[in-house]
Amino acid sequence: MENGVKIYGELALISGSGNPELAREISEALGVPLHKAKITVFANENIFIQLQESVRARDVFIIQPTCSPVNYNIMELLIMIDTVRRASAGRITAVMPFFAYARSDKKDKPRVPITARLMADMVATAGADRFMTVDLHAGQIQGFFSIPGDELSAFPLLSQYFREKQIPDLVVVAADLGFAKKARNFAAELGAPVAFVEKRRDGSCTESLSVIGEVKGKNVLIVDDEVDRGTTMAGAAHKLRQEGVKDVYACFVHATFSDNAAQRLAEAGFKEIVCTNTQPITPEKRLPNMTVIHLGPWLARIIDAVHRGLSVGKTLREYKPSF
Amino acid sequence: MENGVKIYGELALISGSGNPELAREISEALGVPLHKAKITVFANENIFIQLQESVRARDVFIIQPTCSPVNYNIMELLIMIDTVRRASAGRITAVMPFFAYARSDKKDKPRVPITARLMADMVATAGADRFMTVDLHAGQIQGFFSIPGDELSAFPLLSQYFREKQIPDLVVVAADLGFAKKARNFAAELGAPVAFVEKRRDGSCTESLSVIGEVKGKNVLIVDDEVDRGTTMAGAAHKLRQEGVKDVYACFVHATFSDNAAQRLAEAGFKEIVCTNTQPITPEKRLPNMTVIHLGPWLARIIDAVHRGLSVGKTLREYKPSF
Amino acid sequence: MENGVKIYGELALISGSGNPELAREISEALGVPLHKAKITVFANENIFIQLQESVRARDVFIIQPTCSPVNYNIMELLIMIDTVRRASAGRITAVMPFFAYARSDKKDKPRVPITARLMADMVATAGADRFMTVDLHAGQIQGFFSIPGDELSAFPLLSQYFREKQIPDLVVVAADLGFAKKARNFAAELGAPVAFVEKRRDGSCTESLSVIGEVKGKNVLIVDDEVDRGTTMAGAAHKLRQEGVKDVYACFVHATFSDNAAQRLAEAGFKEIVCTNTQPITPEKRLPNMTVIHLGPWLARIIDAVHRGLSVGKTLREYKPSF
Amino acid sequence: MENGVKIYGELALISGSGNPELAREISEALGVPLHKAKITVFANENIFIQLQESVRARDVFIIQPTCSPVNYNIMELLIMIDTVRRASAGRITAVMPFFAYARSDKKDKPRVPITARLMADMVATAGADRFMTVDLHAGQIQGFFSIPGDELSAFPLLSQYFREKQIPDLVVVAADLGFAKKARNFAAELGAPVAFVEKRRDGSCTESLSVIGEVKGKNVLIVDDEVDRGTTMAGAAHKLRQEGVKDVYACFVHATFSDNAAQRLAEAGFKEIVCTNTQPITPEKRLPNMTVIHLGPWLARIIDAVHRGLSVGKTLREYKPSF
Amino acid sequence: MENGVKIYGELALISGSGNPELAREISEALGVPLHKAKITVFANENIFIQLQESVRARDVFIIQPTCSPVNYNIMELLIMIDTVRRASAGRITAVMPFFAYARSDKKDKPRVPITARLMADMVATAGADRFMTVDLHAGQIQGFFSIPGDELSAFPLLSQYFREKQIPDLVVVAADLGFAKKARNFAAELGAPVAFVEKRRDGSCTESLSVIGEVKGKNVLIVDDEVDRGTTMAGAAHKLRQEGVKDVYACFVHATFSDNAAQRLAEAGFKEIVCTNTQPITPEKRLPNMTVIHLGPWLARIIDAVHRGLSVGKTLREYKPSF
Amino acid sequence: MENGVKIYGELALISGSGNPELAREISEALGVPLHKAKITVFANENIFIQLQESVRARDVFIIQPTCSPVNYNIMELLIMIDTVRRASAGRITAVMPFFAYARSDKKDKPRVPITARLMADMVATAGADRFMTVDLHAGQIQGFFSIPGDELSAFPLLSQYFREKQIPDLVVVAADLGFAKKARNFAAELGAPVAFVEKRRDGSCTESLSVIGEVKGKNVLIVDDEVDRGTTMAGAAHKLRQEGVKDVYACFVHATFSDNAAQRLAEAGFKEIVCTNTQPITPEKRLPNMTVIHLGPWLARIIDAVHRGLSVGKTLREYKPSF
Repeated sequence: MENGVKIYGELALISGSGNPELAREISEALGVPLHKAKITVFANENIFIQLQESVRARDVFIIQPTCSPVNYNIMELLIMIDTVRRASAGRITAVMPFFAYARSDKKDKPRVPITARLMADMVATAGADRFMTVDLHAGQIQGFFSIPGDELSAFPLLSQYFREKQIPDLVVVAADLGFAKKARNFAAELGAPVAFVEKRRDGSCTESLSVIGEVKGKNVLIVDDEVDRGTTMAGAAHKLRQEGVKDVYACFVHATFSDNAAQRLAEAGFKEIVCTNTQPITPEKRLPNMTVIHLGPWLARIIDAVHRGLSVGKTLREYKPSF
Repeated sequence: MENGVKIYGELALISGSGNPELAREISEALGVPLHKAKITVFANENIFIQLQESVRARDVFIIQPTCSPVNYNIMELLIMIDTVRRASAGRITAVMPFFAYARSDKKDKPRVPITARLMADMVATAGADRFMTVDLHAGQIQGFFSIPGDELSAFPLLSQYFREKQIPDLVVVAADLGFAKKARNFAAELGAPVAFVEKRRDGSCTESLSVIGEVKGKNVLIVDDEVDRGTTMAGAAHKLRQEGVKDVYACFVHATFSDNAAQRLAEAGFKEIVCTNTQPITPEKRLPNMTVIHLGPWLARIIDAVHRGLSVGKTLREYKPSF
Repeated sequence: MENGVKIYGELALISGSGNPELAREISEALGVPLHKAKITVFANENIFIQLQESVRARDVFIIQPTCSPVNYNIMELLIMIDTVRRASAGRITAVMPFFAYARSDKKDKPRVPITARLMADMVATAGADRFMTVDLHAGQIQGFFSIPGDELSAFPLLSQYFREKQIPDLVVVAADLGFAKKARNFAAELGAPVAFVEKRRDGSCTESLSVIGEVKGKNVLIVDDEVDRGTTMAGAAHKLRQEGVKDVYACFVHATFSDNAAQRLAEAGFKEIVCTNTQPITPEKRLPNMTVIHLGPWLARIIDAVHRGLSVGKTLREYKPSF
Repeated sequence: MENGVKIYGELALISGSGNPELAREISEALGVPLHKAKITVFANENIFIQLQESVRARDVFIIQPTCSPVNYNIMELLIMIDTVRRASAGRITAVMPFFAYARSDKKDKPRVPITARLMADMVATAGADRFMTVDLHAGQIQGFFSIPGDELSAFPLLSQYFREKQIPDLVVVAADLGFAKKARNFAAELGAPVAFVEKRRDGSCTESLSVIGEVKGKNVLIVDDEVDRGTTMAGAAHKLRQEGVKDVYACFVHATFSDNAAQRLAEAGFKEIVCTNTQPITPEKRLPNMTVIHLGPWLARIIDAVHRGLSVGKTLREYKPSF
Repeated sequence: MENGVKIYGELALISGSGNPELAREISEALGVPLHKAKITVFANENIFIQLQESVRARDVFIIQPTCSPVNYNIMELLIMIDTVRRASAGRITAVMPFFAYARSDKKDKPRVPITARLMADMVATAGADRFMTVDLHAGQIQGFFSIPGDELSAFPLLSQYFREKQIPDLVVVAADLGFAKKARNFAAELGAPVAFVEKRRDGSCTESLSVIGEVKGKNVLIVDDEVDRGTTMAGAAHKLRQEGVKDVYACFVHATFSDNAAQRLAEAGFKEIVCTNTQPITPEKRLPNMTVIHLGPWLARIIDAVHRGLSVGKTLREYKPSF
Repeated sequence: MENGVKIYGELALISGSGNPELAREISEALGVPLHKAKITVFANENIFIQLQESVRARDVFIIQPTCSPVNYNIMELLIMIDTVRRASAGRITAVMPFFAYARSDKKDKPRVPITARLMADMVATAGADRFMTVDLHAGQIQGFFSIPGDELSAFPLLSQYFREKQIPDLVVVAADLGFAKKARNFAAELGAPVAFVEKRRDGSCTESLSVIGEVKGKNVLIVDDEVDRGTTMAGAAHKLRQEGVKDVYACFVHATFSDNAAQRLAEAGFKEIVCTNTQPITPEKRLPNMTVIHLGPWLARIIDAVHRGLSVGKTLREYKPSF
């Protein structure tokens, strides 16, 4: 099986509306055209899908990050899985490079949902055989799926990017204590120390930040998995500057950028912001100092490995990105 | 069991965002306050729900027609069911007076979804024990649910309304042949004959209407389950007038009214339009000649019967509406 | 994949007792012998099955319409699926050209079953991976299945047959309003107008028929999906003759013919009766003016396409029947 | 909970067509009338059921041994469960005093079904919450059910009957080695030794019997769980007489009596035949020397215990039959 | 429902072998005797359970932390659930105050299991209706369960204990960065700052510790969810002392104490060690400076609330521990 | 398909800790190396598995009899299945040559588990697609599995061994009446008569044995499926010798040998003891007069047939063992 075996019918790639550019990158890197799927939204808001070509017996990968518009894209994904399943595909992999509702992953208050588990169940109930995601907010979400799948991490790409930059006196900073362990690991990859910005609510509503660890006079790289409203990351940058750091860099995988996040980051004075395109990097999100690592070629290699029954771990280790 | 037994904990009513007015009607008719559920939509569009009171062991009815915004309301319903289930409710009934995606109920073309079945599976997977709906587009959709439930029909309320009006020389007309059988039954309730407006595509794209049955000089009542864009019903009204009918009435259960439907109906010159409030009758939907039958008191009686283990059939037969 | 790929083991065809002649037609058209399955009914009525050859890893199609004896044939089908599954088949498709209990597809009265859903669940629980049927009474029944499958329609074969006959002044008639929409579509295929025979219960028990639409002096073709007792179709023929039509033709897919249906049709004076052999056309069912369209070669082509992962839609469009 | 608690709605008893007399016995013993269920078999053999009264929230026991006509009765049971489930019963217990297909409980040849497991799955899929049976052919069949249930044994009633008769010099004989262990236990209850009649195929097809153990000059009681065709039991009786025994008695729980079994038993010269009415004891089955132990009162007591949440084991131990 | 309703049969408490002392505490606090369950381990190591009293319809709580011997206790729990389910309990709650395999909660390396999800599935498959746990290693594990349940936190009891002690100049320290966020929250409860001990692998195998945050001259309280081998906590204590702290306290919920942990802690020179008895505090685990908070009375209150359908959140808020 | 087809990826063999020697035999006979799986048991007794090579898309056979240490080996098997499933294997077969808890296969007392069904469910829930076992204590246990599988019997190997020995005047003896039918069939294979040793409890606790059938002056071969503590078999040997038999032989498939069984058998004076290595034949189990039939080559042939989609029945019939 050195060269892999074709255990299902031919590969088929279908893109939902979530991130057509990423789907195109994957399609081009694989040399496999995107399957034609006609998606209609009727006047009554009902989504309707008709595949224009047969997928019978094929090994279908549906590429659909559940990014904005979130609830629409989730419904579109589920309906597309149902369509492909009833069209008698051989195997269906739901490729969700961004997985919404990942922060709703536990009951940390009474009477709240665990929506991430619900999402995982929905994907399986609709008929997916496998899932593929990139950097889930918590790795445990893998265990929410009853179907097998692959969670990939783009952090090795980010760390390699920064290793090549060779920034002197670098300290890696986690802006959220929930990310402390991953930040430590990321720092170890860069051979850098780690520090933390701690956020704490004092009394009723005012919130104060403090820095734990040595940062003065250093270049700092704030790392996180996702930038949503950008308040945490921008607040950390401001606080770090107060503490006398030199340049401030930011890197993260998921550029959600809701609620004026772009403006907030623009005003935070980062030297460079590095992220990936698990979500579309629309013109409104683009900042002059932003570097986007396009994940298409990388995801293409992994999809190819999954399709041909090759080791994904080996494929990842051997992957050489070009920035 | 003549007076019913309490087999679950106390009744709890929770309203989603779909139709809060209908939920209030039900709550008032039952004398049971609506349960406090805090629904938040974060900047990243994620829906978050927290119940403000315990529902442990309670017999919970979640009132949420999946009307506009359709995909949002579906997701809110599913997340609410998950919330209630994980909060250890005794029994959960998803009350969906309007059930979206009901027209996607079969594969009548290759490679299309059966989204109505998908919806039914989602509701069950999220954790509902029972469902309750009003006039599904096709009765077979009941069979899409693996959980038991009650499909109620508001047509007896509509036919009683018109019986009381005693319109002379009335002919019931179905504007869609898929509704032919139900129109015939509705006509029989009114002791009236039935006729049909047939729509046929000629050659490429022009569409012509023809009337099958005797309508000339009669008062006609066009009946359907739902008005979506209103083109079918308005078109039928115009065609019938060409055929020399007297007054034209319209009645239907579900007032979806997408894409300028209100204006289309306004211009079609109906003597009276009668519908129900399974969906909110927003100011934009309201027409001067429109009569809305409020289903709240009726649904309240049925929910009470289900809660107390009483016969729903008997409850429906004994129900006396007041218009 | 232009020529299809073998994604499962070799094709295996197994016939139950339902319609061995149809199974033979399929087997001959495919050039694949019927698998030897020994079916024994013990003195205690228990059905016992032993496959005489291995089906390990094979792509098995079990051909079993659930026609008379209905309950026996259903049980035989389920037990055969269990047998094939436990014998480690690669994939199992339940081919049910006639699907019994299809009229029990909704709760239109209180406290009745939805037996068609039950049947769909039984087939899946027994272990079928896919289903194949012909012209379900309601298309929605597809959605009762949790497994994927193909519902095929023999109406294109029937309409082609009548197009070739070129009967002048033809009107298509639906004898049951529940079939109105399908009759309209069938009429459109023939470029003919459509009319209806309406049945209505007056007062207690007498039932009267009326014709809606223009039929006087025309040749009429009554179309339906199934002839069960034949009373509806024979009654329509008598009524139409009273209305002064010329020749009366009948066509339908499923020849159930229970309770003297053959005699009823014989006395109804049809010019020609056209049906298919989804159920066995036993000598008692055969009438002198009956034309049977044998579905074996057609089903064979579809089974071959499913087995080889080819588009079923394309296969159907390219199929050229010879009558 | 000394007197039990009502944890479901009121008890409801529904009888299928399998054994209406037994259902009547249970109903009378409980003082609970049989629920009115209208069972119709249409001309096309489809079974249709409509409950005439509400079962909403009730604790329903459906009494239906799957005796002759076996496949019909199984289908009727499954459809009845579906009906009761969709009618929103509180709990459903399938009471199957005789469980067909119990001998198809393992793959002892290649490519055969395990139909007993299939039956158990069907009962659960249709919607039963619990099962109740009497003396399964193999106790392991309990484990085929994914739902909980009670397997009851009528052998203590049979042994008590014979203890009261005080037959001298009694030897208990198993006519089938698969029943050896149960026969030994039955013998121990009577304080009697045990012997076996062994059946062995010699060469091609002739079958010879031999007796293992001491029987000469003794009274013998042949015991088995079921008499189907009666050949085994009649053959054993003939062989035992050849070996010089005195009187020959027979006892068994299930009187299937297929294929002239009654005549075969009549000619075998038993002094007395004792059985139960898990299946209807029709006039054709009745023999002059037959004693039938009516299980209705006994089952009534157990159903009552299950309904009230009382110990079934205690109920059985305290039960005093009157013959 | 102010005083709660009894929606299931009476409460029944059953203890496995995992922590009989804790079960006894619960039983005493509730005034409900432990149900008699006879647990036998045969010579062939097979576990066999027989309940000595009926649990029919009862609301059963099985108390079994999956502590050492871990794999034995898991199997015993699963078999006990099966026993109780087949004995027709009304509802089954698996009370697992310590949940083994919780660290195997994600695939952070290729080709490893997610055993915590497997455990959750096992518990549900065996037949539990609900679960109850205390301080899961990761809150997300709640989402591994398809059944509802309650995860309780003993940290409020620990923080209240230390609030009452009023230790001056206290800094809370997380010895593991994965616990950083929870440590911060714990610190906030005590109004204390937080610091971290970071562990990093340098090059091949040597591991170095560093302290992030201000600790010099302070009293420190190291907090964690579990002490397994004790190396992390002991190492942190040594490192902190090197950094010039005053007294070192430790607190944690789960006292696993494998592989000489007790000795390691003894040598680490803690002023006081505070933990709970989710696992048995055997004589080998007991240290002179150890304070054990007994959870029995607290769990009893929660079990009572669950049984009576009362709010668990409210019960927890109103609970007043006495140390 | 004469030579079989490769329908899954390449064959992969993985051995758990249960019986590495048997796994090695299979591996050598197939010429397929054992897959490297690193199994770690942490200090806290948690089992951790990491596969050292990819199994993506492979046809994986996990070889793990659930022999001593029983509960450990079961857990290890389940965790290994989870590991392999999440590593995206193409198909997983759980090969359990010895299946623990098989005697817990029915509720023959109130309130006991059916652990064998629980085990079957666990194996399927963990993710196995198929099972393979050797001589289950009761064939019905096959029906406990919802997944398909193969139960193989080693008795034909044992009977062939004894046929080749040509022992004169041989009588086959069942030491347990539950094994009576299988013993009869085994005797028929050898052309020998059958006899039984009956065990009966008299009064309170003393247990007496009696022989049923002719054994005096004969050579006897006691046959059983498993030797656990060895008391039954040793007791039978003593009793038979009292009855004046000549040589006493023993054969059985599963050598569990708990609680000094080896010594018990050694003292029972068998001429020869023949068994298989479904469980490891450790030095403590080995007796001088013991012949072990190694099942590796035989299982290898069957695994190969399953992998290649060939008939297992034919493979078994054509197998020629060499002793």
